[in-house]
Amino acid sequence: MRSELERSGTYWQTQEELTYGAMVAWRNNARCIGRLNWQKLHVRDMRALSTAQDIFTALVEHIRLATNRGKIQSMITIFAPQSPGDAGIRIWNPQLIRYAGYRQADGCVVGDPLHIELTEAVQRLGWLGAQGGAFDLLPIVIQMPGHAPEIFELPRDCILEVTLSHPEFSWFADLGLKWHALPVISNMRLEIGGISYTAAPFNGWYMGTEIGARNLGDVERYNLLPCIARAMGLETHSDRTLWKDRALVELNRAVLHSFELAGVTIIDHHTAARQFMHHEKYERQAGRNLYADWGWIVPPMSGSTTPVFHTPTKTASLHLISFIRTIPGRNNVPGPATL
Amino acid sequence: MRSELERSGTYWQTQEELTYGAMVAWRNNARCIGRLNWQKLHVRDMRALSTAQDIFTALVEHIRLATNRGKIQSMITIFAPQSPGDAGIRIWNPQLIRYAGYRQADGCVVGDPLHIELTEAVQRLGWLGAQGGAFDLLPIVIQMPGHAPEIFELPRDCILEVTLSHPEFSWFADLGLKWHALPVISNMRLEIGGISYTAAPFNGWYMGTEIGARNLGDVERYNLLPCIARAMGLETHSDRTLWKDRALVELNRAVLHSFELAGVTIIDHHTAARQFMHHEKYERQAGRNLYADWGWIVPPMSGSTTPVFHTPTKTASLHLISFIRTIPGRNNVPGPATL
Ligand code: HEM
Ligand code: HEM
Repeated sequence: MRSELERSGTYWQTQEELTYGAMVAWRNNARCIGRLNWQKLHVRDMRALSTAQDIFTALVEHIRLATNRGKIQSMITIFAPQSPGDAGIRIWNPQLIRYAGYRQADGCVVGDPLHIELTEAVQRLGWLGAQGGAFDLLPIVIQMPGHAPEIFELPRDCILEVTLSHPEFSWFADLGLKWHALPVISNMRLEIGGISYTAAPFNGWYMGTEIGARNLGDVERYNLLPCIARAMGLETHSDRTLWKDRALVELNRAVLHSFELAGVTIIDHHTAARQFMHHEKYERQAGRNLYADWGWIVPPMSGSTTPVFHTPTKTASLHLISFIRTIPGRNNVPGPATL
Repeated sequence: MRSELERSGTYWQTQEELTYGAMVAWRNNARCIGRLNWQKLHVRDMRALSTAQDIFTALVEHIRLATNRGKIQSMITIFAPQSPGDAGIRIWNPQLIRYAGYRQADGCVVGDPLHIELTEAVQRLGWLGAQGGAFDLLPIVIQMPGHAPEIFELPRDCILEVTLSHPEFSWFADLGLKWHALPVISNMRLEIGGISYTAAPFNGWYMGTEIGARNLGDVERYNLLPCIARAMGLETHSDRTLWKDRALVELNRAVLHSFELAGVTIIDHHTAARQFMHHEKYERQAGRNLYADWGWIVPPMSGSTTPVFHTPTKTASLHLISFIRTIPGRNNVPGPATL
C-alpha cells in the first residue's frame, strides 16, 4: 500500500475496508434516524468500471436489486475513488429517482420545485423526455473526470412507484398523486480513511414523513396541504383551525397506507424513533459515542410525541469515515449550476 | 451609584433601567417564539417589598392584572434583587399557577407528574389543600433569604381556568379536562447588568401547543393521547395508523377552540411562527443579531409546516441582560429537593 500510495497518491482499499467503511460511515451520520440497521447494508464494489455507460448500467442494477419488488434492501454501490487533482466521478442527481420541476410563465411550478435547476440543465444537455407533468422521471447525469456530463434515461420498468390512496377518503385517489418507492441519495461523497468516493449512491427505505410531510407537504416542494385541506372541506382561512395539521396527518396516513397496500417497505416516524432509541442503547452498550443532530432526528411532524424529542443529543463531525454533502459549484464540484 | 456599590456590593437600578432591562432580557431569550411583542411588557417594580406576605399579595395582584378577564397582558413583577452572599428571594413554584401531582401506590400518577416533587414538598410544609384530583391548584412557596419557606394558598377567584371542549366531538367535554389561562414563569432569574433578580415572575399568553402538545400530551405529563384516541375510536395497536398524530391534532383543536370560546387570549403555532419571522425581519432592520434556539422555536407538532423549521438559527448566551434558568439544589438555589 505504501508504494501504491507513493506512485499514485492514492491506494486501493480492500473489499473488507470498503464494506466496513461504508457501514461505519452510515453509523457515523448524525442526521440519520435509521441507523439501527447499520450492519445490514449490501455493499457493491464497482470500482473497476471506467465508462459512464457502465456506471449507468450499474445504477439501474442497483435500483432493481435494492427495490427487490418492494422488499427494499439497504444498499450502496461504490464507484472508483477520486484521484488527487481531479473532480472524481460525479452523479449530478441528488437522488437517482426524482421528478422534474418546470417553472411556468406565470411563475407557478409543475412538478418538484426542488429540481427546476437540474431539469433546466438536463434540457440544455439535450434531454427530450420532458412531458411537462407533475411526476416526470429525471434522467441520470453522469460526469466522468475531465469529460462532459452524459445523460441516460432510466428504463421505466425498473422504477417502482406507489400511487397514493387514503384508508378512508375515496376522493384521495382522484388527486392523482404517487411517489417512488426507493430513495437513493447520489450526491454525497463517501470518505473512508482519506479516500474520497465521489460516486457512491446509497439507499435505505423511506420514513413516511419524508414523502408525506416534506416532499409532498413543504410549501417549497409540492405544497399539497391546501389542496388536501380543501378536498377535506376544511376552513382554510384561519391557521387557528389547524387545517394544515389535519391535512398533514391525512396525507401521511395516505402515504403509509398506500406503501403497505403496494407491499413496499416503509417505516412510520414513531417506529423509526423507537428503533433509534434502541440503537442509542446498543451503541452505549458497545462503548461508542452516539452523535445525533436533534433537528434532523426529530421527525418533521408530531415531534413531541416521539421519544427522540425528549432526548438531548450531541453532534460532532467524524471526518475519517463519513458521508459528506457535496455542494455543486464549490470545491470544484461540477453540477447543474456549472452548465 | 459607585458609593452605593461600594457600601452594599450592589446598587439600586432606576425604574427605566429596570423596565428596559426586562424587555431586553425577553428579546434576548433564544427560546421564546413570542418576542415580536417585546416592547409591550408591563413592568411592575416591587423591589420595596420585604415580607413573604407582601410578596404573595403582589403575586395575586399580578395574576389578576395580567389575566385581565381573559384579555391577557404580558407582565413582569420584579422583587428586590439578591444581595451578594445570600440566596435572594425565591419562589419555589416553576409557574405561579400549576397543578399538583400525586403518585399512587400502584405507581400511576394523578395530576401533573411534573409537580410530584413540589407537591410532596408543600405537603411536608403543612399544605392541607391536597384533594387528590387531576387539577388541584398548588399553593405558592416563597422563601425569603435566610428564612424558612412559607406557603400561601391562591384565592380561587383570581385563577381563570378554561374547561376544554371540542368544536365537533361532543364527548370531548365529558373528559373533564381544563387548563389555566395564564402561564407565569416564576423560577427564572432576571439578570440586568450584574444585578440578579431572583424573584421576577413574568407571563405572556399561551401558545396552544404548550397545553395541547406538551402539558396534556407528553407521555411524562398528562399523557392524554391514548385516552383521546380511544374516545375517537382509533386503532391504537399500531403506531402506523398515526393515532397519536390524529389525537394530538384534535386535542390541540380543542385547546384553541375552548380558549377562544372563553374569550382568553391564545395563539396557535402557525401564527406564532409567522410573527416570529416578522420579528426576525425587524431585528435585522434594527441592525441587531437575532439569536434563536431552533429546537425550542420550532413547535412540537407539525414542525415542517411552519416557516421557522426551514430557517437556520444561531444561538448565543447573552448573559448581561437575560433570563436564566435556576436549578434548585445547585448554586445555593433552594427548592423542593432541599426540604
Ligand atoms: C434503512 C432505512 C433508513 C431509514 C428509515 C433512514 C432514514 C433517514 C431519514 C428520515 C433521514 C433524514 C432525511 C431528510 O430529512 O432529508 C436520513 C438521513 C440520512 N441517512 Fe438514513 N435512513 C435509512 C438508511 C440509510 C442508509 C442505508 C444510509 C447509508 C448507507 C443512510 C445514510 C443517511 C445519511 C448520510 C443521511 C443524511 C443526508 C443528508 O445530509 O442530507 N441512511 N435517513
Ligand atoms: C406574549 C406571548 C408569549 C408567547 C406566545 C410566548 C411563547 C413562548 C413559548 C412557546 C416558549 C417555549 C416554552 C416551552 O416550550 O416550555 C417560550 C419560552 C420563553 N419565553 Fe416566551 N412567550 C410570550 C411572552 C413572554 C414574555 C412576556 C417573556 C418575558 C418577559 C417571555 C420569556 C420567555 C423565556 C425566558 C422563555 C424560555 C423559558 C425556559 O427556558 O424554560 N415570553 N415563550
